[in-house]
Amino acid sequence: MAATENAKPTPGTAAEGMGVAKGGWFTELSTMWPGQGLSLKVDEVLFQDRSKFQDVCVVKSGAFGTVLLLDGVIQCTERDEFSYQEMITHLPLCALENEATAVLVVGGGDGGVLREVSRHRGVEQIHIAEIDAMVPEVAKKFFPEMALGFQDPRVRVEITDGIKWVEAAAEGTYDAIIVDSSDPVGPAEVLFQKPFFQAMHRALKPGGVICTQGESLWLHLPIIKELAAMCHEVFVGGSVSYAYTTIPTYPSGQIGFMICSKANAEGPPLDPRTPRRPAPEAAISGYPPLRYYSSELHSASFVLPAFARKELGSSLTL
Amino acid sequence: MAATENAKPTPGTAAEGMGVAKGGWFTELSTMWPGQGLSLKVDEVLFQDRSKFQDVCVVKSGAFGTVLLLDGVIQCTERDEFSYQEMITHLPLCALENEATAVLVVGGGDGGVLREVSRHRGVEQIHIAEIDAMVPEVAKKFFPEMALGFQDPRVRVEITDGIKWVEAAAEGTYDAIIVDSSDPVGPAEVLFQKPFFQAMHRALKPGGVICTQGESLWLHLPIIKELAAMCHEVFVGGSVSYAYTTIPTYPSGQIGFMICSKANAEGPPLDPRTPRRPAPEAAISGYPPLRYYSSELHSASFVLPAFARKELGSSLTL
Repeated sequence: MAATENAKPTPGTAAEGMGVAKGGWFTELSTMWPGQGLSLKVDEVLFQDRSKFQDVCVVKSGAFGTVLLLDGVIQCTERDEFSYQEMITHLPLCALENEATAVLVVGGGDGGVLREVSRHRGVEQIHIAEIDAMVPEVAKKFFPEMALGFQDPRVRVEITDGIKWVEAAAEGTYDAIIVDSSDPVGPAEVLFQKPFFQAMHRALKPGGVICTQGESLWLHLPIIKELAAMCHEVFVGGSVSYAYTTIPTYPSGQIGFMICSKANAEGPPLDPRTPRRPAPEAAISGYPPLRYYSSELHSASFVLPAFARKELGSSLTL
Repeated sequence: MAATENAKPTPGTAAEGMGVAKGGWFTELSTMWPGQGLSLKVDEVLFQDRSKFQDVCVVKSGAFGTVLLLDGVIQCTERDEFSYQEMITHLPLCALENEATAVLVVGGGDGGVLREVSRHRGVEQIHIAEIDAMVPEVAKKFFPEMALGFQDPRVRVEITDGIKWVEAAAEGTYDAIIVDSSDPVGPAEVLFQKPFFQAMHRALKPGGVICTQGESLWLHLPIIKELAAMCHEVFVGGSVSYAYTTIPTYPSGQIGFMICSKANAEGPPLDPRTPRRPAPEAAISGYPPLRYYSSELHSASFVLPAFARKELGSSLTL
């Protein structure tokens, strides 16, 4: 046992937190997970600034390599990011019967989702709407293995409010929209609200699919339940389902995805639990291999623990 | 962001840690997961003593309710224990074609595994070999919902070294052996070594199954790989497989299970990935309902992330 002697972590700003990061420990605290938090030994603070929207900080940890923090919350780490990036991307894209040609990423400024989308060879357009220009800049400097997603010539980067981008898109523009957001406190709050989901629904082609960061089953079941009920109202005639992945540096060690499909012009709605397409190309020159996703894991990730199935079952169509 | 200001957690004993627990935060550190640790806000220290084998401590946390710590490592919490207890028990017992009649639990002094075994009505004998008498005592006082497993008249409690118990058992005594151990540092080290697995193999009936606490895929892949290779040597003609469950208060938020079956007298070995029996009785008077396990989740829990499948694949037979 070890003790954070005389240490009573108190919520504060990233700037305050950096006092700790000097050869010490960082504890990730938030009102989103009161009374608990992952602690990481921080060897070095590599970057720290305040953007127009949030505190942006990069630290080096022994346990998880380089870590990106936004407003003091871990967004991704070098060691385990692949779990989240692969799953939030390949779950929707491999669920589609026909390969997506137009994909939108909202948020995702670290480039990891772009990297995964770009494994899908048939995609012609990859748009990304990231609100904070500092995030891609920092990613390119400190997370080259994620930021390589920006190098794909099919990628078009818009530094803009994701909601405005989606609202301005022509109806039926995208086969898939992936929302790689932070938690619903701070700048990402609106990305969990009905107007944004209605706008996404409009911007999707018939039979198209969205996949959004959907918090943790162990921590946020009431939020997820509300989100699922709202999706149920928006995706009429389509499908609403939920999957999750394991990832050590997200609160409680897991994160989920809300996956909704727009009604098809004809035929039943998409059932995203069964992959219709094989896993994307893993061996791309300069790319890391696929490290988490497989077709078998795709289906397994929709099987929820009994307590979650009981709570969400009535809002999920699948 | 919050900071453990001036806080450089240093490995120590539970007694030292308790300085923290006075209205402060506890950070779970170990050489088994260097540079990271779950921090919990501790409201009250309910119990603290040193048994013949280890430091035993019970604290009250806001986030996870009552928490049992052995040598400063979280063993179980009121809020999430069901995930581990249900999965380590029902994975082996529901994999068997015929209901188990004789089951041995090694470790498991908190009573949670006993509670789950006792949901299986056909089991006639439930033996438990727990080395530390203080653990059941503490469980009965502070974790009544787990310790109710001790009330089942089929349970026979032996306060003894699990290895000696298994070595002394007649060949072919048990249908299933469940090893609910702490980590392979300290008193539980021998429970991860070959002589113990050989003794368990001997004590199993043909076609019988063991399920052992198998550490975390995210943290301990080299240990798991070694364990799987050793199981492969011991369970000749049987099967060796690996499953996992999500649980927020274990390191990295997950824990796995090594599941091995002894060769059948005739026919192919057991494939534990497919449940042969329905989920056990959930509605038992005075018992909590099943909160994690389902037959569908049973199969899903064996589907490993690509990085783990790649590393363990050659040692697993299934």
